[in-house]
Amino acid sequence: MPMYTAPIEDMMFLFEKLRNNQKYNELEKYKEVTSDLVKDILQEAAKINQNLILPLAKVGDENPAVLENGIVRTPPGYKEAYKKYIEDGWTSLSCDPKFGGQGMPKTVSAFFDEMLSSASLSFKLYSELSIGAYNCINRHASDEIKNKYLPKIVEGKWSGTMCLTEPVCGTDLGLLKTKAKKHSDGTYKITGQKIFITSGDHDLTENIIHLVLARADDSPAGTKGISLFLVPKFIVKDDGAIGPRNGISTGSIETKMGIKGSATCVLNFDDATGYMIGDKEKGLSAMFTMMNLERIVVGIQGLGISEIAYQNSLSYAKERKQGKTNDSKSKNGADLIIEHADIRRSLLNMKSIIEGERALCFWLSQQTEVSLYHPNDKVREEASEYVSLMTPVVKSLFTDLAMEITSDAMQIYGGYGYTKDQGIEQLYRDNRITPIYEGTNSVQAADLVFRKLSNKNGNVVNKFLKQVKSECNSDNEKIKPFISEFNNYLAILEKFSDWMVNKAQTEKDDVSAAANDYLRTLGYFSIAYAWIQVLNVCFKEYNENETFYHDKIETAKFYFDKVLPRIQQHYKSAISGSSNIMNFKFN
Amino acid sequence: MPMYTAPIEDMMFLFEKLRNNQKYNELEKYKEVTSDLVKDILQEAAKINQNLILPLAKVGDENPAVLENGIVRTPPGYKEAYKKYIEDGWTSLSCDPKFGGQGMPKTVSAFFDEMLSSASLSFKLYSELSIGAYNCINRHASDEIKNKYLPKIVEGKWSGTMCLTEPVCGTDLGLLKTKAKKHSDGTYKITGQKIFITSGDHDLTENIIHLVLARADDSPAGTKGISLFLVPKFIVKDDGAIGPRNGISTGSIETKMGIKGSATCVLNFDDATGYMIGDKEKGLSAMFTMMNLERIVVGIQGLGISEIAYQNSLSYAKERKQGKTNDSKSKNGADLIIEHADIRRSLLNMKSIIEGERALCFWLSQQTEVSLYHPNDKVREEASEYVSLMTPVVKSLFTDLAMEITSDAMQIYGGYGYTKDQGIEQLYRDNRITPIYEGTNSVQAADLVFRKLSNKNGNVVNKFLKQVKSECNSDNEKIKPFISEFNNYLAILEKFSDWMVNKAQTEKDDVSAAANDYLRTLGYFSIAYAWIQVLNVCFKEYNENETFYHDKIETAKFYFDKVLPRIQQHYKSAISGSSNIMNFKFN
Repeated sequence: MPMYTAPIEDMMFLFEKLRNNQKYNELEKYKEVTSDLVKDILQEAAKINQNLILPLAKVGDENPAVLENGIVRTPPGYKEAYKKYIEDGWTSLSCDPKFGGQGMPKTVSAFFDEMLSSASLSFKLYSELSIGAYNCINRHASDEIKNKYLPKIVEGKWSGTMCLTEPVCGTDLGLLKTKAKKHSDGTYKITGQKIFITSGDHDLTENIIHLVLARADDSPAGTKGISLFLVPKFIVKDDGAIGPRNGISTGSIETKMGIKGSATCVLNFDDATGYMIGDKEKGLSAMFTMMNLERIVVGIQGLGISEIAYQNSLSYAKERKQGKTNDSKSKNGADLIIEHADIRRSLLNMKSIIEGERALCFWLSQQTEVSLYHPNDKVREEASEYVSLMTPVVKSLFTDLAMEITSDAMQIYGGYGYTKDQGIEQLYRDNRITPIYEGTNSVQAADLVFRKLSNKNGNVVNKFLKQVKSECNSDNEKIKPFISEFNNYLAILEKFSDWMVNKAQTEKDDVSAAANDYLRTLGYFSIAYAWIQVLNVCFKEYNENETFYHDKIETAKFYFDKVLPRIQQHYKSAISGSSNIMNFKFN
Repeated sequence: MPMYTAPIEDMMFLFEKLRNNQKYNELEKYKEVTSDLVKDILQEAAKINQNLILPLAKVGDENPAVLENGIVRTPPGYKEAYKKYIEDGWTSLSCDPKFGGQGMPKTVSAFFDEMLSSASLSFKLYSELSIGAYNCINRHASDEIKNKYLPKIVEGKWSGTMCLTEPVCGTDLGLLKTKAKKHSDGTYKITGQKIFITSGDHDLTENIIHLVLARADDSPAGTKGISLFLVPKFIVKDDGAIGPRNGISTGSIETKMGIKGSATCVLNFDDATGYMIGDKEKGLSAMFTMMNLERIVVGIQGLGISEIAYQNSLSYAKERKQGKTNDSKSKNGADLIIEHADIRRSLLNMKSIIEGERALCFWLSQQTEVSLYHPNDKVREEASEYVSLMTPVVKSLFTDLAMEITSDAMQIYGGYGYTKDQGIEQLYRDNRITPIYEGTNSVQAADLVFRKLSNKNGNVVNKFLKQVKSECNSDNEKIKPFISEFNNYLAILEKFSDWMVNKAQTEKDDVSAAANDYLRTLGYFSIAYAWIQVLNVCFKEYNENETFYHDKIETAKFYFDKVLPRIQQHYKSAISGSSNIMNFKFN
């Protein structure tokens, strides 16, 4: 079974040293979230993840969730662990105190999301969608509904789902067929089939609150006719008590490559009672409140799985002897594989990506909080644009790089990595869903290039790059080589962005064909931007914590030397255009 | 279950149009291998692979090989299929007629290897190692042993294994502990444990002929003390009849991520009778006869799995509707995903890599035959150097790219790709062993840069590039843009090669850290070289088969525009050196 130690030192470094974001610091509500408080939280989080949840990963893989006589049963031990998990208040971490939450900012809850992803993605998914449902209900529902449902969701006694996908529509929700028929009392009767519903049914909570996209029978076809409904597994009585079973049944659960502990359900809605959330026919945009935050969390899943893969391959590399290094001092027998240049390169590749991602994610969490709570409209809007820009990037790049990292970690284990015993191949299989769900990475790339680069207020990416430029200059002699390299790639990104924005006017297929390359370019660049922020601290405060900062600087150097050059290829490949692709006749 | 149609048209194109290799054509023994004969063989091969073997892939995944009461049982249906497989003579395809073989060149047998890898890698592995054992015995054993063992192996009644790996040594065979004690009759008693033995035991053949590396008790430590032994599961009597069971037992079989139909065994040798093959203490180099050919076949496995992944994702893309294209003509509802630029890009990426690999592999098969059978020593030696140079490249690059291709194929299936129903995720899991076994891809890269780039006769890569240059110029106006682009990358490869050869003298860690990048660079370049050979034919004979050649030219164009630029990144990343990597202190 893989081991895991939560990277608290790195998290606290980010929390303490990278919070010099002026706008974030202007947020009243987080003034009392001190370093000491956060450290306590992270230490408790580490304990439950390392001790209680980590062992569930293998259990879930070997004993998948099952559907028996219409009831979904989670793997052995999940129930007991979940009970402890909610008793300790982990579902409520980032929720509003008004509903029983602890009111922690995303800068903190994202660290918890990362740890939980490292420990067991399957277990995580049972509560993750609850937070999504919480956010969506909190933003769009009436006070009556909020007061009725949110306290139980925050407490973790009830869980939530997102019911979007149907057999003919995953990406393309305009095609959805689920119907909502209005009843005289203002409620709706929901009928249709939803598939790939994560945690669609299970035995961990007393009730499950489904957020369902459906089409009212007087609404038009296409995405414009979609509304959002709250559909509980059990009807909730006026006094909040659990009432009769609603018209929802589990048709089947999927047999999957990984995340086997997580129940992925086909749900059949048959005249199920539902309550409209938000405005009629505005369901898609309401659901996107949930989707967008969820997409960032999927990126964090990739980061968390990368971290545990890295830790284990590093540990194995320190134990396994094989072959001699170039300047081997051992007379007989082999050297530790961590002494081999190529293994070191592979490990530093992982580390430099992971720590850069974590720093970028911290920046994004700050932006998210600013976008939600800053008193100034303009500031909120600008932050919101950055969050929109970076959401598809974090979702796609972090999950794709987690495939690279879990694969490289397996490779370090050699033949042992391919066997089930080590638990490394499970990380690879579990992570393989992350580039697919919540919108495939190609859909993210299309979202980025067609909706996020520019919006009604103009060119968002230029705004972002302008801010980056204003921040990334320093008089420190030691950071200059980094900034000089950074500026070379900034220049490529500017050219690439201009090319994309122009082509979006004249040759959309060129933009579509280049979307993945552009996403990666912006992503690698943004990680470098996060590294520059880290480096600023490292060089400024070097003497205060020499060992830690030296490690950071060398890790950053690897990123700039060996990872950032990937941008060149993406740019060159992309600007060759799409006519060859579009004209090709596939047999 | 995935579908599969053997790509006979492309194979016959290569066989008919790319055999203008003068030295290959000088080989007497293949004069009678005509196009008609080869076409007949490929058509029969397609039948057995598409109809009989393909369904075994899913069966093997769902019903892995098991060890029961000391006996390994293959999945249901394997026995019957294997019986038909050997009755039809497929094990004997490339073997010497002297022992009952059909004497086909590797230019033909490689096509069969590809088809069989597409159909079921697990099933393939039961006969694949037999051919390896055949090659090794044929090259190194006495006539007595050859006559006793080879006819049955060629017939497929007996199978073979390679027993190298032990718990403490995979890559590093110098550490091996298995002992061989000489007996008065000249035979040896072999004692020790071998692990990860593919097809180490099974119920498909009457006997299993293990080729075992062991250390005679008077031999020195390290690789210099290793000899090679033939150790049959059942002792073979003088008249060729099966005798008593030898001292070999199966300790366990591995539970693996994929290739579950293939039995990966722990074999315990306990005073097992063995016969030395080749010279004492020259076991490693004798085994490498088997290893080197086997490594090329592992590359072909990657190619075969890539092909079936491509075929299925293409087929799915033509059925699945989702989203609207940029110039959608559909009024209502979605377009086929094959009409989306990004999906087309992904499919062409696969196709351009697969067809380029197949062409490169054909070239390599010709070189292999020349290296073995050309009458002129110098010609043989030069071809042998090219085979040595390209073996690690084909093994590593084809298997890594097969990970990319099977992953991209899953991605096209979206959520469905992650479920077991489609069989796509199995291709991904099955292929994941190919970058690991027969020497991990990092070991291949080290082999390339430290042993293959230069040898006692000088700089091999320069020789290769000189030949490439002499072949890659053409007066045809249409090919010129390709050659011009090709020459840009040739210039990078030359700089990179010089850098590597120089660093090998002064700073070996730089070479080690850059080895993977160099392997990829040489590999992408070599595929482009194969494409140039294809393009020469296409432009010259364009009017003879316009549709086919147009398809080829456009596919090549994609490769040159979108794949070849990857070289830039590898070069830039590599030449930043290794001091940062070597000095890093991993916590």
